[in-house]
Amino acid sequence: MVGVVGGGRLARLTQPAAIALGVRLRVLVEAAESAETGAVRVVPGVSVGDHRDLTAVAAFAQGCDVLTITGEQVPSALLEALAARGVVVRPSPSALALVRDRAALWRRLVGLGVPCLCRPGGAQPGSGGLPSGFGECPGIRRELVALVARSPSGQAAAWPVAEAMHAGGICREVIAPAPRLDPELAAQATDIALRVAGELDVVGVLAVGMFEVAGMDGAPSLAVHDLVTRPHDSGHWTIDGAITSQFEQHLRAVLDLPLGDPRPRASWSVTASVLGGAYPDLYRSYLHVMARDPGVKVHLDGTAVEPGRVVGHVTVSGDDVDDVRARARHAADFIAGVIDE
Amino acid sequence: MVGVVGGGRLARLTQPAAIALGVRLRVLVEAAESAETGAVRVVPGVSVGDHRDLTAVAAFAQGCDVLTITGEQVPSALLEALAARGVVVRPSPSALALVRDRAALWRRLVGLGVPCLCRPGGAQPGSGGLPSGFGECPGIRRELVALVARSPSGQAAAWPVAEAMHAGGICREVIAPAPRLDPELAAQATDIALRVAGELDVVGVLAVGMFEVAGMDGAPSLAVHDLVTRPHDSGHWTIDGAITSQFEQHLRAVLDLPLGDPRPRASWSVTASVLGGAYPDLYRSYLHVMARDPGVKVHLDGTAVEPGRVVGHVTVSGDDVDDVRARARHAADFIAGVIDE
Repeated sequence: MVGVVGGGRLARLTQPAAIALGVRLRVLVEAAESAETGAVRVVPGVSVGDHRDLTAVAAFAQGCDVLTITGEQVPSALLEALAARGVVVRPSPSALALVRDRAALWRRLVGLGVPCLCRPGGAQPGSGGLPSGFGECPGIRRELVALVARSPSGQAAAWPVAEAMHAGGICREVIAPAPRLDPELAAQATDIALRVAGELDVVGVLAVGMFEVAGMDGAPSLAVHDLVTRPHDSGHWTIDGAITSQFEQHLRAVLDLPLGDPRPRASWSVTASVLGGAYPDLYRSYLHVMARDPGVKVHLDGTAVEPGRVVGHVTVSGDDVDDVRARARHAADFIAGVIDE
Repeated sequence: MVGVVGGGRLARLTQPAAIALGVRLRVLVEAAESAETGAVRVVPGVSVGDHRDLTAVAAFAQGCDVLTITGEQVPSALLEALAARGVVVRPSPSALALVRDRAALWRRLVGLGVPCLCRPGGAQPGSGGLPSGFGECPGIRRELVALVARSPSGQAAAWPVAEAMHAGGICREVIAPAPRLDPELAAQATDIALRVAGELDVVGVLAVGMFEVAGMDGAPSLAVHDLVTRPHDSGHWTIDGAITSQFEQHLRAVLDLPLGDPRPRASWSVTASVLGGAYPDLYRSYLHVMARDPGVKVHLDGTAVEPGRVVGHVTVSGDDVDDVRARARHAADFIAGVIDE
């Protein structure tokens, strides 16, 4: 039994992996999110409770073999108190606390020799997974994501490094593997993520956001700008595109099961986020997309549509990266109502 | 909202597909199966009721857009009565009734010109999906399964024809596509399944079990021995091995959504059933299998282990059919306790 604190998209997307593994999930949601949140409709064991209330979270943790956290709302002190009571929290409260304290995280990464991106005049990497404001910096070519997983016994696995495109604070498109990425740079990116996972004692999935930067001599280099210690939007391509998805791998890791094979199932996979548009009912556009392209894997959250909010994602896999990108983009744009043919 | 009558493995395996599609499931289980049945632990909307009681099933059907049936226990007359009350039952009660009446089904298939296998001295194909007693017949080379899906609007899709191996009344191993199958015979098998689906007005997944038979002149031919109008054990390879699984396709079909791409994701996929063995706790062998071969996709039902009863399945995909078979077989045998290294 795995207890998940937070009932949004990530908890929802964890349930199919749990079903296959024969693992039972319980989910703790806040009262405010209880009716329409992603996981409530797909997980039988949903409890409602305040994520800031030690008694509520401790009661929820009873009977769970391990507790994992999908959101940012649980105070670090509360997690420490749970651990002191014997609750197994993974990743550990200390790893979570470090990742949340961005200044301390940055000092730690620099201390490890990890190349980081310092904002001009600032002293910390971007927080919240969103590199807004960096897009215009000269020298930044694109964003890469090194996605890895690590288990308590120290086993680790890395998916191919992907390219991510953000807009308006939302991960809009991910291409895996990152096209035309220098193999040596890819190896460096993976090495950084595995090393950070080990040094910070991360258990579960770790997504490390990096920029590919043109150096003075024109040679590309890497600069880390973000860290997330859980499954992340930029890893949704693994659900359809890899032998082991980030959600299955996270469950295996937090349960200290052997990790699964992270290799891709296809030459290219592209995931595009679907944003809510002007039409609250997605049904008609959903039908159209399914009819137009039977190979698109559509993942909808089944929650209420709000303009600009992520309501799902689509993934397309295949041998031709341009074709795969065009199909994923079209499906996402059509469902969102951005295009109508 | 899709209502599923029957809460066993098939309902459980439908839930991940429903989550991705943003479709809500409700499941009606019998009181006797309520505690430990496959779906109860993974679907929030479980009702308990007698599948032979019209009032109970009609009450369950309220609020469902469509009702589908995974088991054989619901009387045909009850399904007809539901349809008369306006409940959308898919496949239709008349198609289900025909498939259940094996003598009538056989006459119908013969009338359609479909080659069928008559038992010596008997006059009907095998019932229940299990070709026991046929194994020793001279001329029978192997069993093939043509898996197709059809929607109410008449759209149809076919997965590659697979080879199935049964033993003791259980589907033990499936290889997709069937190795060394003559392309013309494969096309014939698919054509038969699509034609039967159309002529019988089947909606949803249809699995047609056939034997490859050596003719007088040595040329192979086909003989149909069984029909199942729902997702079937012989199609579990599609969960990991095809772009669209039989469970997703069944949901799309019964909801009259456009069907998905049935093409395989890999050159070869092999699924082996896992049977309960002498050890009630699968945990240790499960760990061993995961550690030994990270590419094995393990699907466990999470229900109590009974010796000889199916408790899950494993699927392995890859480019070398012999390697893939050996890995799947080893994983299944190890979890079942048949081998210990």
